[in-house]
Amino acid sequence: MATRGVGGGSARQTHHLTEERQGTFHYTMGPYSEPVLTVSPGDRIVVETRDAFEGAIQHETDKPSQLLRMPFLNPQNGPIMVEGAQKGDTVAVYIESMVPRGQNPRGTCCMIEEFGGLTGTAYTAMLNEPLPEVVRKINLDEENVYWSDRVTLPYKPHIGTLSCSPEIDSINSLTPDNHGGNMDLPDMGPGSVTYLPVRSPGARVFIGDAHACQGDGEVCGVAVEYSATVTIRVDLIKGWTIDWPRLETADLIMAIGSARPLEDATRIAYRELIRWMVAEFGFDKWDAYMLLSQCGIVRLGNFVDPKYSVAAAVRKTIITR
Amino acid sequence: MATRGVGGGSARQTHHLTEERQGTFHYTMGPYSEPVLTVSPGDRIVVETRDAFEGAIQHETDKPSQLLRMPFLNPQNGPIMVEGAQKGDTVAVYIESMVPRGQNPRGTCCMIEEFGGLTGTAYTAMLNEPLPEVVRKINLDEENVYWSDRVTLPYKPHIGTLSCSPEIDSINSLTPDNHGGNMDLPDMGPGSVTYLPVRSPGARVFIGDAHACQGDGEVCGVAVEYSATVTIRVDLIKGWTIDWPRLETADLIMAIGSARPLEDATRIAYRELIRWMVAEFGFDKWDAYMLLSQCGIVRLGNFVDPKYSVAAAVRKTIITR
Amino acid sequence: MATRGVGGGSARQTHHLTEERQGTFHYTMGPYSEPVLTVSPGDRIVVETRDAFEGAIQHETDKPSQLLRMPFLNPQNGPIMVEGAQKGDTVAVYIESMVPRGQNPRGTCCMIEEFGGLTGTAYTAMLNEPLPEVVRKINLDEENVYWSDRVTLPYKPHIGTLSCSPEIDSINSLTPDNHGGNMDLPDMGPGSVTYLPVRSPGARVFIGDAHACQGDGEVCGVAVEYSATVTIRVDLIKGWTIDWPRLETADLIMAIGSARPLEDATRIAYRELIRWMVAEFGFDKWDAYMLLSQCGIVRLGNFVDPKYSVAAAVRKTIITR
Amino acid sequence: MATRGVGGGSARQTHHLTEERQGTFHYTMGPYSEPVLTVSPGDRIVVETRDAFEGAIQHETDKPSQLLRMPFLNPQNGPIMVEGAQKGDTVAVYIESMVPRGQNPRGTCCMIEEFGGLTGTAYTAMLNEPLPEVVRKINLDEENVYWSDRVTLPYKPHIGTLSCSPEIDSINSLTPDNHGGNMDLPDMGPGSVTYLPVRSPGARVFIGDAHACQGDGEVCGVAVEYSATVTIRVDLIKGWTIDWPRLETADLIMAIGSARPLEDATRIAYRELIRWMVAEFGFDKWDAYMLLSQCGIVRLGNFVDPKYSVAAAVRKTIITR
Repeated sequence: MATRGVGGGSARQTHHLTEERQGTFHYTMGPYSEPVLTVSPGDRIVVETRDAFEGAIQHETDKPSQLLRMPFLNPQNGPIMVEGAQKGDTVAVYIESMVPRGQNPRGTCCMIEEFGGLTGTAYTAMLNEPLPEVVRKINLDEENVYWSDRVTLPYKPHIGTLSCSPEIDSINSLTPDNHGGNMDLPDMGPGSVTYLPVRSPGARVFIGDAHACQGDGEVCGVAVEYSATVTIRVDLIKGWTIDWPRLETADLIMAIGSARPLEDATRIAYRELIRWMVAEFGFDKWDAYMLLSQCGIVRLGNFVDPKYSVAAAVRKTIITR
Repeated sequence: MATRGVGGGSARQTHHLTEERQGTFHYTMGPYSEPVLTVSPGDRIVVETRDAFEGAIQHETDKPSQLLRMPFLNPQNGPIMVEGAQKGDTVAVYIESMVPRGQNPRGTCCMIEEFGGLTGTAYTAMLNEPLPEVVRKINLDEENVYWSDRVTLPYKPHIGTLSCSPEIDSINSLTPDNHGGNMDLPDMGPGSVTYLPVRSPGARVFIGDAHACQGDGEVCGVAVEYSATVTIRVDLIKGWTIDWPRLETADLIMAIGSARPLEDATRIAYRELIRWMVAEFGFDKWDAYMLLSQCGIVRLGNFVDPKYSVAAAVRKTIITR
Repeated sequence: MATRGVGGGSARQTHHLTEERQGTFHYTMGPYSEPVLTVSPGDRIVVETRDAFEGAIQHETDKPSQLLRMPFLNPQNGPIMVEGAQKGDTVAVYIESMVPRGQNPRGTCCMIEEFGGLTGTAYTAMLNEPLPEVVRKINLDEENVYWSDRVTLPYKPHIGTLSCSPEIDSINSLTPDNHGGNMDLPDMGPGSVTYLPVRSPGARVFIGDAHACQGDGEVCGVAVEYSATVTIRVDLIKGWTIDWPRLETADLIMAIGSARPLEDATRIAYRELIRWMVAEFGFDKWDAYMLLSQCGIVRLGNFVDPKYSVAAAVRKTIITR
Repeated sequence: MATRGVGGGSARQTHHLTEERQGTFHYTMGPYSEPVLTVSPGDRIVVETRDAFEGAIQHETDKPSQLLRMPFLNPQNGPIMVEGAQKGDTVAVYIESMVPRGQNPRGTCCMIEEFGGLTGTAYTAMLNEPLPEVVRKINLDEENVYWSDRVTLPYKPHIGTLSCSPEIDSINSLTPDNHGGNMDLPDMGPGSVTYLPVRSPGARVFIGDAHACQGDGEVCGVAVEYSATVTIRVDLIKGWTIDWPRLETADLIMAIGSARPLEDATRIAYRELIRWMVAEFGFDKWDAYMLLSQCGIVRLGNFVDPKYSVAAAVRKTIITR
């Protein structure tokens, strides 16, 4: 799809969306906020993102319940206006690089009361006592995430939250849906392209929620959250209308669904992938359906947010002739 | 709870929110729209609501797919500002009466493609062909709903969609959540009081979606939708903070949850009801939990919207001494 | 449907299925157990049922975790063989009366670790500490259930678990499915008729789990469980094939679905009800679907068992001409 | 865990469970069927499995609805008795090899009415017309699966259905649960070890449902089903009690959960994995929970069976010191 972009594959201009330029971060993605930047299709943007807790959690003795204030979580940079973007188009976001910010970069993981995959929550309401609050501060660099004395994990950066604006709604930055949002897919890292449906003039791109690494499903509810300098290119594909976000990596095309229950997210993802294979790769619908039953790949983004995110994927080598 | 209202139980003033005064209807409920009216706690408001299709479906030969334009469905009157309402307060909406509008009032029911309880939808994505589009226009008066030659149903009017604004989000009028929204509870009719959490200055009350009658769950996705003159009183309870909407009828107190899957909506409703019994009626938590296991009443609002709504209720005779 | 029974509406013979005659109770319903009784269609059977804990919980200081031994819970009487019953037929179980057993009848309610609607369970696995174990012993008679000093509830007896055997599976008595099982519907009381699909020669009827009363959803997981003398008549409808259990009361016909998530149980129930209205009451399929959207009644049996049970109902006055 | 087996890692004896010796295949797994073989812990068994349709679908013009007869699907070999196995023990099944049977081995894929991930089913009941019936016969060998002129897939054989008997229930071979059953995990191939909880004397191992390859989730409901000669070794680990099946490959330890909705299957899998890490690898519970949020791997077995199966995994390199 990349070759269809208005920008033609090369960045004309590089913009710097520093914290200062951003000013106020956003906690809801919609058509009602003031743009911070306008770019041409193909332009590069260097974005200074804040971690999902906006730096509020600094010590392992901190209590998230005392420092976090719903719904002001998961701060987003943007909205970035893309010239010429109209409802019915698609924006392509190339993630070029993600570099930790600061001298001694540290990430944060924590257990938050009534949040996470193995606890009662505001939506899966239980009478049990909440789990304890636990905070982990984790040193990291561009090679590794130093989880503990015992465990070191590779640095696998990706963007947790990426969106264009809905048409008339404004959706908090914790919730993924068909506009994108808090999808938490580990595949959305450097080298990937995310396709987002444009529903509002100028597209209004929001980005944030950098993760230094994350497991499938983000089971405790929190990844290694960190502040990053994220370099992206934003291109525009005119007249390509998609219903849900899509993702492309070196090896895969992926369609993303976000819903509850989790099977509905999976259904959306697989149906969108079939539609993609039919529309762009010449497959018959039933052949695609039965073929994916043999070689489809499912990635669980998260099953902890207000909606859950799943990607259904297929290897490019299988679908291209 | 009613006795706690600032308004003191009697309406000082009656406002008329006509179609003309309303001007543009709203399809998303949030803090970003222009108020159409400001009232004092206790005031009465006579609201001219439009049917959920805004009158677009007039004939049984009409095709909803040609006439309806997502997300511009389920038009809402408002926002109505309530003087003195602040985050942490609760608004009480008394529905006093609902009268069909027009000379020969007719309601509308229809089957909409990929919408309803027994069909694949945008969220429960299937590859099956959609169900046929069928439109029913139904004569009605303040006594009856004349469904067919064979079946006449009693007129049981209620409000499908009632909300205060979320704090920072703006949520389309098809979706219920903890702000209220499209709950579709048949108990929300004349004689009932709905309690809604205030999260935005002035509360910003939205109302619409009158139903002449509706079955539990609204299984085909559509009730008998009609235009009504709805008379409400809006009172304000300072300092009473609730997490989810609640409802009071002559016989019942009801707590409402909206979520997917349906068991999560039910969990929320029952947990909120237990919290209400503990906080206001002197029950021990475990006693309330076990007692509701013997006498709790569950009402299914809808299982067709982007989130499903359930009310858990208990008879007042059981909980008051 | 009743008039179609082979038994012709009057009981030829009355059988007594005492505890002694029952001998070993059953905890799984299938085709592999020894029959305890063979009856002719229309015969009356007086059954001595044990409470769901088989009397193991006698004091409010008891700990269910020490006294209950999975999967040996919810003891069932039966299997009762019905002469002439073949796969494809339907058995009709008329509940005539339910009388508490013993001199000073007491029911039992309790909170069981990792069981119930508002707690993590074996299937909705959480890391939270379990809720406390609480036991309530409740005096009752044929008028009332004496819940506490404060609350007295009416005696509303019903059968929690009623089944014919599956064809080849044997299903534990905690789980409802299309064979019947642990449906926990408060409507299944004296005066009701339950229709169960026959899948095994002789039908193999199992019955147990008497409740002195129960709220919608059985939220804490346990009703007022008691030992009862249950008088039933069992009739046979040849050649009437149903996929899921159905229920008839004085006012309603009800179709029952059991599944997770709860919306799937609701879908099954409504689809079966539509099929019933089309096959037996002359409705067009889409008319039935849209009509139930206006007057359907949903009853939540339980949302605490391994599968959840929902009944969808319609008033007989609406569907009969 | 392997090293703990009674069998000590080497097979004393090799048994041949041919079709002839098997005689009648089984469609339900429980304690009520006649053993076909008794083995010592550590013994090797060469099993001739039939495809999931028992060879009934031979031509692409066949109609599954005419040839398949519920519940007689997915034939299982067994039960195989393991000497010394008692409730509370664990059986370890090593899959050594899977070879296609017959001269010109062909697999079968098909679309079955009301079965699959993107269609209404018996449990997710819809009113939509079913999808068309489509049959694919696929040539295969030990290298490749020749899907179509366009697509060739690698041969990645695995076992779809593997179980020990439940204690008192008998569960049809389409349904996975905590006894194992129809889990459809592509990781369960040659080189893997599956751990199954013993609940019945002799364990009663059942095996069947060979797949030449399968995508995550088995989206159309059917893999490339084929008849295979499966060589396994069955060992016994005394006194190791597990609640759900587990799996070990060269790189991973995996815990398997089967439930609906899909998030519940995922919750079970992750909780069991945490318990494993705590019990056997010296992790603190909260550390394991938060660590898996960074490096957990989720595999979707199927989301098409009566219960869905998910595995949660972690790399051995991360958890071993």
